[in-house]
Amino acid sequence: MDQDMGTDFLQLDPSSAPPKGRTAWLAAQIRAAIMDGRLPAGSRLPPTRVLAAELGTARGVVVEAYQRLTDESLVGAHGSGGTIVQYRSGLAYASRPPRSVTPALLPMAAPEHGIDLSPGLPDMSNFPRQAWIRAHRRALDAATPHDLGYGDPSGHPGLRRELAAWLARQRGLRVHPDEIVIVAGVAQSLALLMQVLRTHGVREVGVEDPGSRGARDAIAHWGIRLVPVRVDDQGIRVDEMTTNTVVLTPAHQFPTGVVLSPQRRRALADWADATGDALIVEDDYDAEYRYDRTPVPALHASAPEHVAYAGSASKTLAPGIRLGWLIPPKRLAADVIAAKHASDLGSSAIVQLTMAELFASGDYDRHIRLVRARQRRRRDALLRAIERYVPGATVHGVSAGLHVLVTVDRGDDEAVAAGLRTQGIGIHPLSWHRSRPGPPGFVIGYAANPPDRLAAAVAALGAALAN
Amino acid sequence: MDQDMGTDFLQLDPSSAPPKGRTAWLAAQIRAAIMDGRLPAGSRLPPTRVLAAELGTARGVVVEAYQRLTDESLVGAHGSGGTIVQYRSGLAYASRPPRSVTPALLPMAAPEHGIDLSPGLPDMSNFPRQAWIRAHRRALDAATPHDLGYGDPSGHPGLRRELAAWLARQRGLRVHPDEIVIVAGVAQSLALLMQVLRTHGVREVGVEDPGSRGARDAIAHWGIRLVPVRVDDQGIRVDEMTTNTVVLTPAHQFPTGVVLSPQRRRALADWADATGDALIVEDDYDAEYRYDRTPVPALHASAPEHVAYAGSASKTLAPGIRLGWLIPPKRLAADVIAAKHASDLGSSAIVQLTMAELFASGDYDRHIRLVRARQRRRRDALLRAIERYVPGATVHGVSAGLHVLVTVDRGDDEAVAAGLRTQGIGIHPLSWHRSRPGPPGFVIGYAANPPDRLAAAVAALGAALAN
Repeated sequence: MDQDMGTDFLQLDPSSAPPKGRTAWLAAQIRAAIMDGRLPAGSRLPPTRVLAAELGTARGVVVEAYQRLTDESLVGAHGSGGTIVQYRSGLAYASRPPRSVTPALLPMAAPEHGIDLSPGLPDMSNFPRQAWIRAHRRALDAATPHDLGYGDPSGHPGLRRELAAWLARQRGLRVHPDEIVIVAGVAQSLALLMQVLRTHGVREVGVEDPGSRGARDAIAHWGIRLVPVRVDDQGIRVDEMTTNTVVLTPAHQFPTGVVLSPQRRRALADWADATGDALIVEDDYDAEYRYDRTPVPALHASAPEHVAYAGSASKTLAPGIRLGWLIPPKRLAADVIAAKHASDLGSSAIVQLTMAELFASGDYDRHIRLVRARQRRRRDALLRAIERYVPGATVHGVSAGLHVLVTVDRGDDEAVAAGLRTQGIGIHPLSWHRSRPGPPGFVIGYAANPPDRLAAAVAALGAALAN
Repeated sequence: MDQDMGTDFLQLDPSSAPPKGRTAWLAAQIRAAIMDGRLPAGSRLPPTRVLAAELGTARGVVVEAYQRLTDESLVGAHGSGGTIVQYRSGLAYASRPPRSVTPALLPMAAPEHGIDLSPGLPDMSNFPRQAWIRAHRRALDAATPHDLGYGDPSGHPGLRRELAAWLARQRGLRVHPDEIVIVAGVAQSLALLMQVLRTHGVREVGVEDPGSRGARDAIAHWGIRLVPVRVDDQGIRVDEMTTNTVVLTPAHQFPTGVVLSPQRRRALADWADATGDALIVEDDYDAEYRYDRTPVPALHASAPEHVAYAGSASKTLAPGIRLGWLIPPKRLAADVIAAKHASDLGSSAIVQLTMAELFASGDYDRHIRLVRARQRRRRDALLRAIERYVPGATVHGVSAGLHVLVTVDRGDDEAVAAGLRTQGIGIHPLSWHRSRPGPPGFVIGYAANPPDRLAAAVAALGAALAN
């Protein structure tokens, strides 16, 4: 491929360029376009003169930005052939992507090629096709015409019944089916909650630092200010929380993997009791996967009046299902359902009915057990590879989930990750998930790749760190 | 069932009660709760003293409101047993519904019993189960792990390709697949557009009068003021439009069934060219169904830069699919995709892949042809019944769609519809879809019921009007 790109692909808004540091700004814009696939490998960047004129900036700014990207091996100068993109993004955009691209707990898109170690990606090759198709057929055979109509915006009663039983069994929740709202995933849960909280006057939300960048972006989209709160080896520093609303990952903190300690749980409960309109958004994003420890009950089980609980099938089946569940506290329930109704009238009945069948037949639990065993093997392979290729690293959060956090003594994690990307390896630098600067590290997802690919990627990481 | 209801079910916000007319306000709140199923038949209303105290109002207000509902036969006084709901709503709420309940083009929920003639309900009993399951299996067999991951928020490229071809063939649209955004239905298209338009400073939107109440409610949810514009026998009065944005149903105006005349199309094009940032939201909600006339090309075909085109599979397959498509104008495209991403990251890949298969195999078109023939027979049965049982009525909009509009010389359409509801017959009074008062009428959907039930319902309507 050797195609000449206009400048539209950048969706550049010159008015958003800072008065100073335009070079860094422009380099970042183009880098993002390359990383998310808007600028595929082989495409030609606009001539520096053209882009400079379009931006109303000095040509030197553009030349310097191109040079930085050349230094990062993202692009290469080809004499009179211009500047050509060299990096092959795995991301799937045929064309226009959204303006804000969020690598994170809520990844934008999974790479098609290369080795993607983004956290939060399950093993999609292991999707239970036969069980799903069986459930789908049974669901459609049993569906009444009414079931296929405009349904209850809070979800199909049958699915909510199954889910209430499953959440009780697996997560210790005591909820009535009518308290559950079926949504399109944790992302929609956050969107609905933020919309509703804004109408209730909430203007800032506490988030874990480090914490999911995807969740941060999702919250900020709704015009809510993020207030970072430190995470230590017991979980979030409850004593440093200053907002009435916090978004937490208590069962398996993202990205550190820390389990909220019993002391912190108590402190959190005291905080909630003492704080007016306290709301803890519990993002229970991968609680189904525990390997070496007993289950941690959900926060919701002990303080339902203060917790909005969010889970999904994205990590157990596949993100492409787009099905999740939200249990808002009673005081917000009607508004959350109204927001869901206003957003899309309700989630797909066909998907809901199929999920209800999967729960009812036990196939869902069987699948999770199967995946858990496979993922444990992948995790073990990853840990062996880290020990071998990155011997000085510290590994965190190994006992649960789909990823580990690896911290290293020194180095620029973003630069290392950028270098690896040129080799087709996608690893999230810890910096992406920090609100404030801190020691370097890497968030490594292990669920979506077999042991040999995990080892190859970690070997490349070790080599990059040794340079 | 004889259950004592608290007052929570009403989700009453006393601060939203008007200073005057509290009786009418309260009666309307309770009526809505009964109609949408929050207050099932057999439930007991709160004692008047209790409700009055809770609302901080005189007891007489509550007594009078209960009396009005008694007059409408929605509730009945049972001596010391209190006031009991008599009307059995078909709507499916097990419990808490949203605050705003919208009977309309975007119905909230379909009744499970009785005869529901709500417009916009397709014949769900005719859902093409075998073709769907076949397509679903093929789609899953062909899906790569990547297809099941976090996909492109604007939709799966394969579905967008099929859709672009289909829209060209069926609706005369010339769009590139990359211009299409896959959404959860027309409701989500409206939600995304209103969110984006608000950030662009839009504060008011023109709507057809009469026009879809569901669409009006959907727009108003996002804090946008509705400006009604009259509809006559040529369609919307373009000369009376005062806003930069209008939401229209040009191919088959809802609820009148009028087709926008060629003169008005030209006037609309002139208006769009002369108006800064003009945007026509084209709700092409049932264009697949035409019986006695040639297809009307979509507005989008002639003025793509001024039109946001919205369609869905809700009327062709079933609303429970939750799949639609939006083609925003280029200037809004990136923001719409960002809003879609922030709302739910993208629509269900599994549903999208299945739809792509249905388009590709031709099964979708075959199904529409089949349904069209069946619906034409139902329409003809409805027209015969109207001629027989409501001889003085005028019937509008018979040549396309899923409903007709019946207007009558005199009477209170809301009262008549309320009376029919007590007989288990759901018909939308035209008043529901008016922004401003006007002559009475009924919007009668005919797709979801066989001829004998249509005739029975119309006979009841005739009898009610004769009283």
